[in-house]
Amino acid sequence: MIVIMQQGASEARIDHVIERVEQLGLTPHVSRGQFRTVVGAIGDKQPAHQAILESLDGVERVVPITKPFKLASREFHTADTIVEVGGVSIGGRGVVVIAGPCAIENAEMLNRIASTVAERGAMLLRGGAFKPRTSPYEFQGLGEDGLKMLRETGDRLGLPTVSEVLNAAQVELAGRYVDMFQIGARNMQNFQLLQEIGDSGKPVLLKRGFAATIREYLMSAEYILSRGNRNVVLCERGIKTFGTEVRFTLDVSAVPVIKNYSHLPIIVDPSHAAGNRQYVSALALAGIAAGADGVIVEVHDRPEEALCDGPQALLPDMFEELVGQIDKVAAALGRTIISANNKKEKTSHKGHEEHQE
Amino acid sequence: MIVIMQQGASEARIDHVIERVEQLGLTPHVSRGQFRTVVGAIGDKQPAHQAILESLDGVERVVPITKPFKLASREFHTADTIVEVGGVSIGGRGVVVIAGPCAIENAEMLNRIASTVAERGAMLLRGGAFKPRTSPYEFQGLGEDGLKMLRETGDRLGLPTVSEVLNAAQVELAGRYVDMFQIGARNMQNFQLLQEIGDSGKPVLLKRGFAATIREYLMSAEYILSRGNRNVVLCERGIKTFGTEVRFTLDVSAVPVIKNYSHLPIIVDPSHAAGNRQYVSALALAGIAAGADGVIVEVHDRPEEALCDGPQALLPDMFEELVGQIDKVAAALGRTIISANNKKEKTSHKGHEEHQE
Amino acid sequence: MIVIMQQGASEARIDHVIERVEQLGLTPHVSRGQFRTVVGAIGDKQPAHQAILESLDGVERVVPITKPFKLASREFHTADTIVEVGGVSIGGRGVVVIAGPCAIENAEMLNRIASTVAERGAMLLRGGAFKPRTSPYEFQGLGEDGLKMLRETGDRLGLPTVSEVLNAAQVELAGRYVDMFQIGARNMQNFQLLQEIGDSGKPVLLKRGFAATIREYLMSAEYILSRGNRNVVLCERGIKTFGTEVRFTLDVSAVPVIKNYSHLPIIVDPSHAAGNRQYVSALALAGIAAGADGVIVEVHDRPEEALCDGPQALLPDMFEELVGQIDKVAAALGRTIISANNKKEKTSHKGHEEHQE
Amino acid sequence: MIVIMQQGASEARIDHVIERVEQLGLTPHVSRGQFRTVVGAIGDKQPAHQAILESLDGVERVVPITKPFKLASREFHTADTIVEVGGVSIGGRGVVVIAGPCAIENAEMLNRIASTVAERGAMLLRGGAFKPRTSPYEFQGLGEDGLKMLRETGDRLGLPTVSEVLNAAQVELAGRYVDMFQIGARNMQNFQLLQEIGDSGKPVLLKRGFAATIREYLMSAEYILSRGNRNVVLCERGIKTFGTEVRFTLDVSAVPVIKNYSHLPIIVDPSHAAGNRQYVSALALAGIAAGADGVIVEVHDRPEEALCDGPQALLPDMFEELVGQIDKVAAALGRTIISANNKKEKTSHKGHEEHQE
Repeated sequence: MIVIMQQGASEARIDHVIERVEQLGLTPHVSRGQFRTVVGAIGDKQPAHQAILESLDGVERVVPITKPFKLASREFHTADTIVEVGGVSIGGRGVVVIAGPCAIENAEMLNRIASTVAERGAMLLRGGAFKPRTSPYEFQGLGEDGLKMLRETGDRLGLPTVSEVLNAAQVELAGRYVDMFQIGARNMQNFQLLQEIGDSGKPVLLKRGFAATIREYLMSAEYILSRGNRNVVLCERGIKTFGTEVRFTLDVSAVPVIKNYSHLPIIVDPSHAAGNRQYVSALALAGIAAGADGVIVEVHDRPEEALCDGPQALLPDMFEELVGQIDKVAAALGRTIISANNKKEKTSHKGHEEHQE
Repeated sequence: MIVIMQQGASEARIDHVIERVEQLGLTPHVSRGQFRTVVGAIGDKQPAHQAILESLDGVERVVPITKPFKLASREFHTADTIVEVGGVSIGGRGVVVIAGPCAIENAEMLNRIASTVAERGAMLLRGGAFKPRTSPYEFQGLGEDGLKMLRETGDRLGLPTVSEVLNAAQVELAGRYVDMFQIGARNMQNFQLLQEIGDSGKPVLLKRGFAATIREYLMSAEYILSRGNRNVVLCERGIKTFGTEVRFTLDVSAVPVIKNYSHLPIIVDPSHAAGNRQYVSALALAGIAAGADGVIVEVHDRPEEALCDGPQALLPDMFEELVGQIDKVAAALGRTIISANNKKEKTSHKGHEEHQE
Repeated sequence: MIVIMQQGASEARIDHVIERVEQLGLTPHVSRGQFRTVVGAIGDKQPAHQAILESLDGVERVVPITKPFKLASREFHTADTIVEVGGVSIGGRGVVVIAGPCAIENAEMLNRIASTVAERGAMLLRGGAFKPRTSPYEFQGLGEDGLKMLRETGDRLGLPTVSEVLNAAQVELAGRYVDMFQIGARNMQNFQLLQEIGDSGKPVLLKRGFAATIREYLMSAEYILSRGNRNVVLCERGIKTFGTEVRFTLDVSAVPVIKNYSHLPIIVDPSHAAGNRQYVSALALAGIAAGADGVIVEVHDRPEEALCDGPQALLPDMFEELVGQIDKVAAALGRTIISANNKKEKTSHKGHEEHQE
Repeated sequence: MIVIMQQGASEARIDHVIERVEQLGLTPHVSRGQFRTVVGAIGDKQPAHQAILESLDGVERVVPITKPFKLASREFHTADTIVEVGGVSIGGRGVVVIAGPCAIENAEMLNRIASTVAERGAMLLRGGAFKPRTSPYEFQGLGEDGLKMLRETGDRLGLPTVSEVLNAAQVELAGRYVDMFQIGARNMQNFQLLQEIGDSGKPVLLKRGFAATIREYLMSAEYILSRGNRNVVLCERGIKTFGTEVRFTLDVSAVPVIKNYSHLPIIVDPSHAAGNRQYVSALALAGIAAGADGVIVEVHDRPEEALCDGPQALLPDMFEELVGQIDKVAAALGRTIISANNKKEKTSHKGHEEHQE
């Protein structure tokens, strides 16, 4: 940490800062410029120290040197993490396509749409049973009945499944049915849920909050990792900006930044970002070109009957075309779309086990 | 709702929209301009209808006419709602000051700081027992022990208390100790928590999410109101913007906008917005001048020892000066700061009971 | 336009709105719902009408139906516009790479870097002679001397050139030397400059302001088009958000949205968005995958000596690798990178001339 | 400046950074932590140095210690600057009200509205003759004819005048008619205009760009100050955020932050922030309560006939009530609204002349 003193801070205040730095078990290192004094505090590991030093009189601001996350950092674990979900590897050279309806509406529609996406290249099946809805008057999901349908459909088609949990109490229940949990953007800082998922050990798709910085996002991953669960897949799904033409602005720069800072896989969700099916494919391809490890998209064959987010659902033909394009763009960049034929290929990448502990 | 068709949309597509509008139980009303056709859908009450119509071919966008919240709206309930918390009225002509430490660290410090703020004009005592922390490695609060300390201190000083709950499971527990729940910004769309608080019937301070629009915010209030709990106090606490000099940008315009749209009281939290004690008082006064019904501020007498958010805590002297200024600004605008002498005065305002049901 | 009246607006106020709509030469069309009345105003073409109707008592808001831009709209001109710059076609099936240093520092460095980018696939040469600098104490560019160097270097290498103009007075001067003007993000709403460029008739690269909505952006293009200059190439270069890891957030969704709304070509500028060379290539590829018609990137062989924006300049090797990747990604999506061999190929696309006037 | 090296940066790279720091004439100061090395560069004064050091291999980022602006800083000039405009002092203890129509539409309306605001307490008259309009099809102002009307009306009523200039070429012309220039938000980084105004020496109202950070804003003030013109009044007028209920989000925290960083006066413009007259007064009062030195508001007696921004214009009665409230809130905080009786009172504050040069 570096403590920047106010211009003209008195010697007594500088001395007090030095004393406090030492009390915190850190080594002070003082630089005196013409106008300002700067006190380095070497050895810091606790985020709480920053607030303590910032509270001292005469301190203008404190600049942290190390990033606040540790287990999630590329420095802690150099190689790319690969997360196995029901036999499908996310991360590494492969590019994965996760697809399905926004909400599970009934068994028949789930079967129909799941078959459609499976035939066209999806390797994991998504479908919501617990739906977080902005309005208390909208469809809130089928709950456990929906999870059962998802399990049966996934089993029938040989597709691992992913579904959202909204709170810690649902983790145990949903864990009986799904292969991968999803934590939605609104729950990215629901710390109890993060810890519960951490304890479960099961793979999780952790979406970025729509107003979370990259650091805040990786700190949420840290909550899960710190409980011993290393099966975290990140997902950029758009942030809030002043723009109004799409629902959220897909922050495609999050992909290379996270690849630089962290070893965790990251995919993109162009459906929630766009909020409009005509822009979904362009955003999906942008994410892949930026280096994402896959996409998660919503598909519906009768969007005008959808109980949730119909306007953003890809039609089956659009989805099929998109999978073909992802395949080609991935290949152009030296990667491979994961398909039924090559889904286990990734496990030969054993290099991802070493890390500095 | 108004359905705006794409330029050049075919008659078949327009007819299909009209048919769907009728199927939804609404009355279609068609306007044909030179370039575009617009279909009004009169009588809509369900937010889900918008997504259905937006999913239809040939539709460019759908503009809702009515606001999505009902019980929270000024149109539903004309007079200002006044929420009673342990004998203190929030809303109406009075202006309330809520103060205390960020986190309850131990009984001694809570007593010390609570006495300090009580003597200087605070009418409710705040203090966190469950702390949502960005980092898993930071102090997470004392839990039930902290709530007990808060209860004892509040009783001793005659101050009603407010404390944050992080999830539905904590509601029953915390409800035994506090007079008012707080829902933090990160949980504004934790819908299960909103419903649980709704069922409790107890007063709640609902903070605005730092990336929530006013409409999304009032929809969260609607979740609580729709469960029969009308004791909702809103709180603007800053939004995420590109600015970096303060932690969050206090959206002071939220105060008059919410006063226009809703009957619920709204206060401001300048401490979390500023993140820096030197700016807290200016923001608190700005909120009051904009029409807020009060402020909630953090106070600490030894901020450099604080376990949480020391840099933003007001020192006792600063707090005392601020209360004096709030008193004068409130008076300048025809309002009265609530003090130990006049805290029940508000209950004479009986006009707030009528509403259209 | 649709005028939405306040709930409970009186008949007198509704009548006054109808009267005003008629006075403006529009046809009123009234829909009365249970709670609100809506007045359609059919035939509007003037943006000023919206403010007039919004000013009337009893009006809650006015929703425009048509987009505010006309000549820039896809509805006005269906086919993609292709802009010719010194024999290179921007738009259509081709993908163009524009490269060069941020600022022209001297003739030697310009020649060296220009040769480097030309050999590696750049088809247009960029280089700033007038530099808009946040600080008055930084290098402001070589002015006309720089433009002369750019002209000579471009001629020597057979590369058309693009350079920024900061105000109307520079248009005539710079027009003598460059093949394409650039209007920077800070000048997107410098309306006098837009008009002057419009009058010049010369190709222009119009960058999006970093806080401009798509509609505001296309209105700025409209300023140029309305003066008879149809040679406008758009450029997404990142917007301001709460993010701090990159300088600006590349809004990749702007690409498909603009392709939907407008016939104008659009490229991306990943260098200014990233502000850091290690993220430039990922963003460039994302832009191409999203459908952009090209990229403009900054290249420097000795970035630590650069007088401007060294940290974001690609090194020659990185640039070469990027061009190869753009080539492959373009091909994967059925497009072709423009190279010295195929730069005139595009002119066979004659379909872009028809439009509805 | 502090250069933070990447984790694991080699000794050769650290040595190269040290060497470069010395070449720049700065004193290096090295701290070696467990994971990272940090190189302080003491004595830096040139903003360009940051980019140079950031360009070096092995450097993660560079943190500037001193703020980039000098003449605008509170450290350079301790006392509040007071700017005299035609006998009215802006800054210091007084609070000023500037009012008038958005655009000068004709002599009669200007006279009528100017008389109205003068009678109700305005001390400066605003009115636009050159209007920056998003659309090329809207009213662009009366130009020099408008300036003449403004001059005549101001003289008749004894009110100094302020009017916007859009480019450097207008400075000389407008300087003949107005007492104070206005630079609009869109031109905050029109550096040529800033320099021209700097050379003119005349008072200027410099509005904050709607996506400018405080640092960028003060750097724009620095452009004017660096030309020897110290008569700069700042104006917060709202920033772009994700909010949609008002046109811009008034960043009221900018007021105390700027008071901390700079000696320049700052006022607020609630009219452009709100975009809706019903919210203007609340925002104006919030600005004053936060410490602003005044407000600039738009007033129109027939807003539905206004050629520009009718919806945000205060009606005369609203304006009168607002002035009364500003008077009371200013008094509550120990300040005085400037009126015809006390406008010269401020000049007794002579303390603002000293500064460290």
